[in-house]
Amino acid sequence: MSKPVYLGIIGVGGVGTSFLNQLARLPNAPQLVLLARSTQTLLSPTPAYSPTIPAAEWKSAIETPSLIKSGSLCPEEIASYLSSTPGRSILVDNTSDPALASAYPVFLRKGISIVTPNKKGFSSDLALWRDIFTAATQGNALVYHESTVGAGLPVISTLRDLVATGDEVTRIEGVFSGTLSFLFNTFAPASGSSSPAKWSEVVAQAKELGYTEPDPRDDLNGMDVARKLTILARIAGLEVQAPDSFPIESLIPAELASLPSSADGVAQFMTRLPEFDGQMAAIKDGAEKQGKVVRYVGSIDVGTKEVRVGLQQFDRDNAIAGLKGSDNIISFYTKRYGNNPLIVQGAGAGGDVTAMGVTADLLKVVERLH
Amino acid sequence: MSKPVYLGIIGVGGVGTSFLNQLARLPNAPQLVLLARSTQTLLSPTPAYSPTIPAAEWKSAIETPSLIKSGSLCPEEIASYLSSTPGRSILVDNTSDPALASAYPVFLRKGISIVTPNKKGFSSDLALWRDIFTAATQGNALVYHESTVGAGLPVISTLRDLVATGDEVTRIEGVFSGTLSFLFNTFAPASGSSSPAKWSEVVAQAKELGYTEPDPRDDLNGMDVARKLTILARIAGLEVQAPDSFPIESLIPAELASLPSSADGVAQFMTRLPEFDGQMAAIKDGAEKQGKVVRYVGSIDVGTKEVRVGLQQFDRDNAIAGLKGSDNIISFYTKRYGNNPLIVQGAGAGGDVTAMGVTADLLKVVERLH
Repeated sequence: MSKPVYLGIIGVGGVGTSFLNQLARLPNAPQLVLLARSTQTLLSPTPAYSPTIPAAEWKSAIETPSLIKSGSLCPEEIASYLSSTPGRSILVDNTSDPALASAYPVFLRKGISIVTPNKKGFSSDLALWRDIFTAATQGNALVYHESTVGAGLPVISTLRDLVATGDEVTRIEGVFSGTLSFLFNTFAPASGSSSPAKWSEVVAQAKELGYTEPDPRDDLNGMDVARKLTILARIAGLEVQAPDSFPIESLIPAELASLPSSADGVAQFMTRLPEFDGQMAAIKDGAEKQGKVVRYVGSIDVGTKEVRVGLQQFDRDNAIAGLKGSDNIISFYTKRYGNNPLIVQGAGAGGDVTAMGVTADLLKVVERLH
Repeated sequence: MSKPVYLGIIGVGGVGTSFLNQLARLPNAPQLVLLARSTQTLLSPTPAYSPTIPAAEWKSAIETPSLIKSGSLCPEEIASYLSSTPGRSILVDNTSDPALASAYPVFLRKGISIVTPNKKGFSSDLALWRDIFTAATQGNALVYHESTVGAGLPVISTLRDLVATGDEVTRIEGVFSGTLSFLFNTFAPASGSSSPAKWSEVVAQAKELGYTEPDPRDDLNGMDVARKLTILARIAGLEVQAPDSFPIESLIPAELASLPSSADGVAQFMTRLPEFDGQMAAIKDGAEKQGKVVRYVGSIDVGTKEVRVGLQQFDRDNAIAGLKGSDNIISFYTKRYGNNPLIVQGAGAGGDVTAMGVTADLLKVVERLH
């Protein structure tokens, strides 16, 4: 049979916890030998890398005397630990930490594969993107990051298959943020709004329901969508230098842009947002007069190399207009698929579906490593 | 570097030709050593399995003196030839031949992996399905068949990921036939028909455009959809005995069921189909009176183990009602995805997109074999 595969996990937040639950139920799961959270690291003792950490009881594993407890380790220390296992090893990064992401090449050059929903490594400077994939080749390691776009939806894998089999992707467009999907599906439903809510009310409601980041401006500034577009554009072959090297329409009113990022700043922002309800109502009404609805979308035109993120009007019978809840929709226009795009749609956020993308990636890496 | 992988291909019809075109453009393609069509087989000479067959010039390769020409070989002979290569080998079956499909276990037990759009192996008797996957395990070989459902759309891979990561698939529903999609999108468009065509006229038009099988009854009898549902239901965990062990609503009028399957029988069928336009108009009008449209769909209820194929009514704003052209749509309802399904949509037929699924599968098998 095949050699054992060893696993290190960093991050036990929403996605991390869901992932550990899924991992615990996998038959033939890799050997969990490292589990790191902000200030704590749990390790299997070297050189045997045994006993391993039980994924199902990771919370109580800290009490297990046979496991090593440590403070937080730097990426180089983790890479050194994982590369000395008596088999192949995989790091699952369930954080959104840019510093850890910039250390991916260190892991990969040591032959440690990476599986992650962390967008930072793939959507920051183009130099890091290139370094990651060069390092993977050099280290004969794999990098899988399905959940960086559309959570568990088959977006990255579909685009990679299209490119690898020689199709010509001409255009990618869609709704890439569950939060902004919910905001516009609620603010300007395609079926017409029976009791039209004001923009600031919809934002407040989304915040209350936990659909936004703790600071809703992190959704409204469009940067999350821009990072996803950067990743897809690069896979499609465009050399996007950085996630802010193309037009991004922020939904943060210019007058509120300078509010501090503190909790107090969030409170001020929410208090003052109603002042701008008129602006958003005008945008909505403008679309309605054309028989359309407004949506916050991202698009990549591969031919003209144009990437943009912002508001756009859609016919009411367009699939983008008809989205429900906080669903994502991603349309791939390609030479082979012709006039009608290949469409993937569904929940694009949430711990369980994001973790699902990570778990599915992990299984693929294990199959490829043997 | 990794050992070479050897490739045998059977079938050079529409999908086969598109696949060979895609194969010719792959970097690091496997070594093509066998190419079989109905009565001819082209082989690389043993024991070196060199020279190989150039995928880009496969039509003229028959003139290459250094290649072996043979009549048609039986599956056992092909398996014996491929299993003796100095590396791992893969058989791509681009036929729809049930006899070849029933020999998959022979190939797999010899360690030859299978990649195919041929539905027959996976949608016939449950015993064959089981034998295929048991043989794959025994032979340490792989079986990939993405293009058996929805052509190149990520349907099989998505369902397998959902199941493998522990999600609970509760329901699968959709339009699985490009032909029947076209027929109903044209006959009963969601936007209302400006110049309503009669059912028999739409069928004749589809036949003329090459959207139907040469004998349109092969689409109208629902068996193609039933085979696809059988495959998905089995992956979802249901023990479907055979593709006709659940209700299939045939669109062939009972009065015409006994017409012969000859060319003359096709002609008689097309001539007499207008007699039944009133029946189809009544079905369409019945839906319209409810504000709905009729579509030919397949559905799997995993909980109740109910699989069915036939006509169903949908609200006009339902994604199934709004399909365009000959697109497929497949909705996966799962525990993790909640109320809104994971949806995959796009062209589900055609040589290039079907071949794309085969090529993408081939790349995955090569990566996993090393």
